[in-house]
Formats: sequence, structure tokens, C-alpha cells
Amino acid sequence: MRRIKLVISYHGKDYAGWQVQKNRKTVQGTIQDILSDFLKEPINLSGSGRTDSGVHALGQVAHFDMDNDKITGDCFRGILNYRLPESITILESSEVAPDFHARKSVIKKTYRYQIYHNHKVISPLYQDRFAHIRKALDLDLMIQGAQDLVGTHDFKAFAAAQNSTETTVRTIYNLTFLPEEDDQIIFEVTGNGFLMRMVRNIAGTLIEIGLGKRPVDSIPEIIKSRDRKNAGVTAPASGLLLKRVYYGSIR
Amino acid sequence: MRRIKLVISYHGKDYAGWQVQKNRKTVQGTIQDILSDFLKEPINLSGSGRTDSGVHALGQVAHFDMDNDKITGDCFRGILNYRLPESITILESSEVAPDFHARKSVIKKTYRYQIYHNHKVISPLYQDRFAHIRKALDLDLMIQGAQDLVGTHDFKAFAAAQNSTETTVRTIYNLTFLPEEDDQIIFEVTGNGFLMRMVRNIAGTLIEIGLGKRPVDSIPEIIKSRDRKNAGVTAPASGLLLKRVYYGSIR
Repeated sequence: MRRIKLVISYHGKDYAGWQVQKNRKTVQGTIQDILSDFLKEPINLSGSGRTDSGVHALGQVAHFDMDNDKITGDCFRGILNYRLPESITILESSEVAPDFHARKSVIKKTYRYQIYHNHKVISPLYQDRFAHIRKALDLDLMIQGAQDLVGTHDFKAFAAAQNSTETTVRTIYNLTFLPEEDDQIIFEVTGNGFLMRMVRNIAGTLIEIGLGKRPVDSIPEIIKSRDRKNAGVTAPASGLLLKRVYYGSIR
Repeated sequence: MRRIKLVISYHGKDYAGWQVQKNRKTVQGTIQDILSDFLKEPINLSGSGRTDSGVHALGQVAHFDMDNDKITGDCFRGILNYRLPESITILESSEVAPDFHARKSVIKKTYRYQIYHNHKVISPLYQDRFAHIRKALDLDLMIQGAQDLVGTHDFKAFAAAQNSTETTVRTIYNLTFLPEEDDQIIFEVTGNGFLMRMVRNIAGTLIEIGLGKRPVDSIPEIIKSRDRKNAGVTAPASGLLLKRVYYGSIR
């Protein structure tokens, strides 16, 4: 048995998310079907975590095991890209030790959230990868409010009701905003793990702070409440992108 | 007769450029047909300039004249967006004085060119709007080389052979590189006007400087030669974006 690691980028628009679902086009399913067909053995592709329907990835990571002893790990990039649709691309492929696990070996992840604001209409060049907020956001308020998210907290208030993880305590190492350009507000958040919908719920809360609908210092109270009702609405999936997954010595 | 100005954004991938061509889908043709059909009079849409097949726009500008005396200028944004395909969006519409002319009144234009380098494969999130250079580019060399383009020069060496403008002298006010992120190299160039393929030929020349194929100080000699053969290859249309068109007191 050999284990192969893939680094995958995809445009999430046409997929019902990462995770295989019956009768739905998913990223995991699309890659897994090509691998099973090509290797003539049933392949299970194991991702670093799920992404919701419509969420993009620049660097999702997954692994699979195979009995095949002929094909070297680096060849799977070309083999898969040759058959994959335009909206999914394998950026890297390599053979890894059997104790590497795409989900269990994660040490941190970076997500990016992109907002276009202050205009009634949005360019087709932005439409599929930005959340569109028609009113003007106050970036300074968002930056200030976001700082209270950094650190180790119980983020239950920012998790979807369906979140099924054992603990809801996570550490956010940093949350930084890129320099604003052309009415784009973009932030990147790095943490040791994220609960279901956590980044989108953080984005929704920061948007409400930026609109002045919610006090800039309200984050600590939301965290303390551990109640989803106290955080903002879930921001659109189109604005979210899984940028990078980090592994200890492996990458 | 009333004159209406439009600010237009489009994703160039599916279009044979701006300019109407027989039996080809073009941006001008698509908008013009909707206007003619809606206003029940033949409409001629006049752009600030052509963009090549595959080139994108964040802020192309055009005007048209109509006899209609009922519909206010600002309503054309919604009227058009309601009927336009997803790949074209009207960002603004307004009535302007009859002496405004989308091409003749231009005082300057800004183009943006986007390159993704240093990777064998490119993410589907970048693919349609970046030029993909597999080798690593030296950004410092590109920045240094580009400075010799700034100023008033005869840019004949950077124009396509088919360029038909009377003079080939143009002024570049500035050419600046954005901070590099994720192996993206992006520059913006502002000038009083651009010859046919000029920005793509500048990009192609700077890419060759960045690859070390061409000396960093070669631009002055290329300009002096007035010979297209001495400049670099035309860089891909997908990396080019018309960012903004400036008008004196109008905008």
C-alpha cells in the first residue's frame, strides 16, 4: 500500500462542496472517480476538511492509498489534470509516508475572505469570488473589531448548529487585512482549525461591524455567550477561499 | 438627440473583443443589439477604444445617442443589466453633454497586466485572468527595466504592425508594480493613450527581462529602433485588463 498526497485548487461555483454526496457533483467525488477508474481499484480520497458548496480552494490537501506499485507519486498531477474539468487543478502530487494524514496531520490552515463594497453593482470579474456588500464598510472598524478574535477561545458562537466537533475551542494565530484596493476588503485568517462555517460567520460579524450595525467591541461578548444567535449572519460562500493547509515537517 | 455614457465591466474570455465583427460575439455588439431592440431605433455604441479578444475590462467607457426622451440616463444600468449575460455588467449609466465623446474626450487610461509565475500549473482561480509563466521571473529586474518606458516616447516598436494611428508618440505617466503576493506579478500602466497591442508587447518585453533573456537596460534601444522586431513577444490577452478611462471634468 502506498499513500499519495495531492494539493488541489478549485473554483467552487459548480460544485456542491468538497464532500461526496449522492447525485451531486462534488470535488472529492470528481477526483475520486477519475482515480478509481484510472487505477482500477476503489479509491477513497481523504481531504484536510470539507469546504461548503461554492467555496473555492487555492491549496486544499488530500491523500489516497493505492496498491499500484508502478506509478510514481509526482505523475498523478499530470494524470489527473489531463482528465479533470477546467474548474479543478492538481497543483502538486507526491508519495508520502503512510503516517501522513491529510486531516489528522494538519497543524494550521489559512482561509481568505474577499468582500467588494460601496457599489450597487459588481464587476463580472469579481462576482464569483467576492461577497458583494452594496453599502460602504468602515475598514478601520473591521480591523479593530477583528483583533478580539485572535487567540485561543471557545468559538461555539461562530459555529454552525450542525457543527459536530468534540470541542469548540480553537486558536486563531492571526487575522490580517490586506491593503484596500478598488473597494475590495480582503482578510486572511490562520488558525489551528476551524469549526463548521466559522470563517463565514466571522466574516458576517465583521461586515456588520463595518456597517456600524454592531459595536466594534462586541466580539468578546459574542465569544463568551457561546450562542450562535449572537454572532452575525453567515457571509456568502463565494467570498471564501481555502488558501493553504500546513503540515509539520511534510510541508 | 440625447447622449448616454456607460461604464462597462466585462470578462473577455467569451468575446472576440470589443469591436463589432460579422458573425462573432463581441462586447460592443452584445450591448448595441440590446439597446437597439429596447429603444426601437438603431443604436451605435462608441467605445473609448477597442480591446482585443480575451482582454477584460473593469471600467471600459462608451456612449450612444438616442431620440428617446422618456428614459433617464441612470436607468440604463438596470435596463441593460437585466438583459445582459453574466459576463458583461454596466457599472454606471448617465446622460452627458453632446460634446462628450467616449474616445475623443479621453485624457488618460490605466491598464493592468497580471502574471502568475514560478509554478508548472496554475490554479483555476487564476487561469482566465493571468498570463502563466512556468519559470521564475525576477521582479526587481522587471521594475528596473520598466522605468525606461515612463515619459513621452515614440512607441512604434511596441505597436502591432496593423496599428493605424497617425502618430506613434505617446506619454506613459507611470508604470507601477503591486506588492508581490502568491507568485503573482501585477503592474498597472497609465498613459495618455496606447497603440494597438502596446500593453501586451510591453508586458512581453518585461517578462523576457524578468527571465534574464534580455538585458535590463534594453528598453531605450528598443524605443529608439522604432522596430517591432526588437521588442518582446506579445503577452497573452488573458492577463490584460482595461482598468479605468479618465475624462477631464466629466469624470
